[in-house]
Amino acid sequence: MKTLRDIGECEAIRRLAGKLFPAVAEVVGIGDDAAVMHDEGFNADLVLTSDPVIEGTHFTIDAPPKGIGNKAVGRVLSDIAAMGAEPLWLLINIVAPPEMPFDKLQQIYAGASALALKFGVAIIGGDVASGATLALHVFGVGKLPRGTAVCRGGASEGDILYVTGELGGSIRKKHLFFEPRVAEGIWLRENRWATAMIDLSDGLATDLRHLVEMSRAGAELEPDALPVSRAAREMNDGMSPLDHALTDGEDFELLFTVAPGNADSFEQAWRAEFELSCARIGRITGRTGSIVCRTERGGMLLTGKRGYEHYSGRGSRA
Amino acid sequence: MKTLRDIGECEAIRRLAGKLFPAVAEVVGIGDDAAVMHDEGFNADLVLTSDPVIEGTHFTIDAPPKGIGNKAVGRVLSDIAAMGAEPLWLLINIVAPPEMPFDKLQQIYAGASALALKFGVAIIGGDVASGATLALHVFGVGKLPRGTAVCRGGASEGDILYVTGELGGSIRKKHLFFEPRVAEGIWLRENRWATAMIDLSDGLATDLRHLVEMSRAGAELEPDALPVSRAAREMNDGMSPLDHALTDGEDFELLFTVAPGNADSFEQAWRAEFELSCARIGRITGRTGSIVCRTERGGMLLTGKRGYEHYSGRGSRA
Repeated sequence: MKTLRDIGECEAIRRLAGKLFPAVAEVVGIGDDAAVMHDEGFNADLVLTSDPVIEGTHFTIDAPPKGIGNKAVGRVLSDIAAMGAEPLWLLINIVAPPEMPFDKLQQIYAGASALALKFGVAIIGGDVASGATLALHVFGVGKLPRGTAVCRGGASEGDILYVTGELGGSIRKKHLFFEPRVAEGIWLRENRWATAMIDLSDGLATDLRHLVEMSRAGAELEPDALPVSRAAREMNDGMSPLDHALTDGEDFELLFTVAPGNADSFEQAWRAEFELSCARIGRITGRTGSIVCRTERGGMLLTGKRGYEHYSGRGSRA
Repeated sequence: MKTLRDIGECEAIRRLAGKLFPAVAEVVGIGDDAAVMHDEGFNADLVLTSDPVIEGTHFTIDAPPKGIGNKAVGRVLSDIAAMGAEPLWLLINIVAPPEMPFDKLQQIYAGASALALKFGVAIIGGDVASGATLALHVFGVGKLPRGTAVCRGGASEGDILYVTGELGGSIRKKHLFFEPRVAEGIWLRENRWATAMIDLSDGLATDLRHLVEMSRAGAELEPDALPVSRAAREMNDGMSPLDHALTDGEDFELLFTVAPGNADSFEQAWRAEFELSCARIGRITGRTGSIVCRTERGGMLLTGKRGYEHYSGRGSRA
């Protein structure tokens, strides 16, 4: 009999979703960062998402409590930002061992609350329950003018690929204390710069694969242009900084595409608006499902059909 | 150092919420079954709630998987119903041990999906994660015409108390396989019958306490009028069927109040609309915080200030 481990979490979601969602024609966001819903009661579209943060999976037992709270809220805000939506409200269910000091729980909530407050988002409900493993389940509600969500599948051949901030090595600290790119996501949607967008949770190689698959396109990456973080350079674990930038998860930066004719004016507008860096890292191609990575020595590197999972270049290019 | 166990889950929510929610003036539903939110982007009010269902707390390890799914979705739909709202969408996060057979997961989802489908509610997102203890966290979104939510705090002196269905002994089966009173909740709000409403999750004595405290009132119960379930009569555990009906949790029926002048026409309209029974079980008084229970032998029974927790009559009236 097959177990959850045999099937894997991603495939499990796909199989379960296939049975659950067939009748839901109005969902834009299945397979996207969040679901985009419309209903006659609302003039705006609603953006809905939920993320778990579980001890042992998303953080270690010695993680700073405020970082746990920051990450739980940040993941949801990052998903909402990746649709270009404005976050409104959060609900937080927390499961904690009965012997956990209440002070730790308060610090976790302080971390969650501080990040929510920073973006003007209200935590309006939730629940506290006892359980063996510390876990937070955060549900987020955002809004968008009707029909304006920026989805993963909107990229066309020739579009330019951009990524915010710096990549790789988030395990050193950023995966707990990152800042979701909320203002940037809203600005990219409002000004219609972004044709497609995704937030980087599984690593650039895998999340770019999601974007090109939903866009029925391919991509060419220029590795020399990747904004490799200092943390990635300091990992010192035998993997090159570039590989860290390509494959490390939980950067929570935005990866998006801009129509080629808009690229120059977009870059100028970005610099005028944000201090945060934004790097031009490649372009969308018509070779469906192919992601080509030009190395500095002129070589070509193709990541496998399933991205990071079959990533063939790891460790071979240092 | 105080632990979560020392403080208790309810008090933990209160303390954490006090720090989180102070700035959120637009929340109707703090301390209610669900949060009622308004935003300029929406003409209707949104009703938002989240409930965990955890193995060992909300169901036993040998619970039928479809019942687990039914309960997880049912709890959220019952909360939405208790505001008189129309449920629209659900997101489900599931945490499962990696060694769990995938078939069991599918059955849990089948139970969740069947109940959602019954009420025309779409499951639009969620996540699957590995963890030691099986748990479902369900997030629900409903809607209401603006300003029409039926809250716990709306009852006035003289209002008549009603409860749907039958009470007590839900542990035998109903707590897993109950049907949330969605149509009834909407009808009670649409026709403006209900002045206050709550769903019975903690037991009649405790949930009535919540309702009268939020309404700054008291109540008189007529125990002979309580609709004691067959399951409560068959418990055979030394506790009287009446005590089961008063104190057992997880009936997931609706407890609500109707203005005294409307009571007769309400009862007639109910019978014309629903097959489900609806019992007149008492009335709201002006004695704030006092719940009086008239026994058949003319005696009086006062439940303590904190409801079931200090319930003084248990076992003394059989």
